[in-house]
Amino acid sequence: MLWTSASSGSDRPPVIVIGHGGGQHKTAPGVLHRAHRFVSSGFAAVCMDAPNHGDRPTDERYQRIATEIQTAASSGSDLAALLADFHALVAEQTVSEWQAVLDHLDAGPVGYWGVSLGCGLGVPFVATEPRVRAAVLGLGGAAASSTLEAAARVTVPVEFLIQWDDERVPREQSLALFDAFGSTEKTLHANPGRHADRLPEHELDSTVRFFTRHLLPH
Amino acid sequence: MLWTSASSGSDRPPVIVIGHGGGQHKTAPGVLHRAHRFVSSGFAAVCMDAPNHGDRPTDERYQRIATEIQTAASSGSDLAALLADFHALVAEQTVSEWQAVLDHLDAGPVGYWGVSLGCGLGVPFVATEPRVRAAVLGLGGAAASSTLEAAARVTVPVEFLIQWDDERVPREQSLALFDAFGSTEKTLHANPGRHADRLPEHELDSTVRFFTRHLLPH
Repeated sequence: MLWTSASSGSDRPPVIVIGHGGGQHKTAPGVLHRAHRFVSSGFAAVCMDAPNHGDRPTDERYQRIATEIQTAASSGSDLAALLADFHALVAEQTVSEWQAVLDHLDAGPVGYWGVSLGCGLGVPFVATEPRVRAAVLGLGGAAASSTLEAAARVTVPVEFLIQWDDERVPREQSLALFDAFGSTEKTLHANPGRHADRLPEHELDSTVRFFTRHLLPH
Repeated sequence: MLWTSASSGSDRPPVIVIGHGGGQHKTAPGVLHRAHRFVSSGFAAVCMDAPNHGDRPTDERYQRIATEIQTAASSGSDLAALLADFHALVAEQTVSEWQAVLDHLDAGPVGYWGVSLGCGLGVPFVATEPRVRAAVLGLGGAAASSTLEAAARVTVPVEFLIQWDDERVPREQSLALFDAFGSTEKTLHANPGRHADRLPEHELDSTVRFFTRHLLPH
């Protein structure tokens, strides 16, 4: 899904790639809310259904792993580590898919916004794709060595969001992921709330200013 | 020192009380920089020399304790705990001094900005003074139970700054202080850097928006 503005100040506005959350899809309410805000702020926005999400067909392999993770989690296994490995597996597919979307759009400077699943898939994407010049990530942790390795290869400015009372991502793993980013400019923003609670609106204000600072010519 | 603007949109703009850092004074460069920015953003700003700082006379008692702390620190004692106790002692004096300044100014809504010493003295001030409606604090930790008790009594919105590589305030103590604030709205902002490194300019932008949101009528 691509959002653009007819009144954009530029023929070729910077594109914000939005990574949706687990179980969501490319037109989830939170995605739409952010996309509209980005477009009204001088950007284009794009969001793709992740594999096994939204309008895409059921992927038997991912479906099986997701079911295994649910079973393992209910038996007390380390959910964060299982999810991190799963995200790394899915990212092997999505990084190249998202790069193909940027090719198709003939994208110039790109920003990335994604939390939770959008962080798990986003970290390897931002680490790999040089068109991405700034990234907002969060609600994810460094539960797998692959995540830490990818985070260390991220060098663009990062704004990293933590829900302080996140019951799914252990706080120390969130802090470790922030720690691991190789970026010179990185800012951690933590707010009270649980994993699925709505992010404060002032964080979206901050995100828009962050992307404006790094992606829009003065 | 009071800064006001002749072109202020209000006869009685909200006042930002600035708490300077240890060893600094009421016209230190960082204080001036923030004061000018606040005044150009619709606020008044005020900063007072802390006891034993700036133009105030040497206070033999504080001077003796400060010297003892330096000696203890060089022999490996817990500097953070010693400083926290010292700040709590000084705050017994500064809270009432700063309240007298607000009385003198006939202040309405007040914001507080202070890091390091300005945080140590600021937490009990913000906890005590009902005219303070929003506070930016940081570069301080919860090394003393008195700090935690005062932080729990803070209920106004808080923006809390951490230098991620702070060599003076242990990171876990900073996180514990953020955790302890009783505020419903509180946001932690962490950036790379050591204790005395310059804060990123985008944090001052954020501070201005934070005070604007909470102190200036729409």
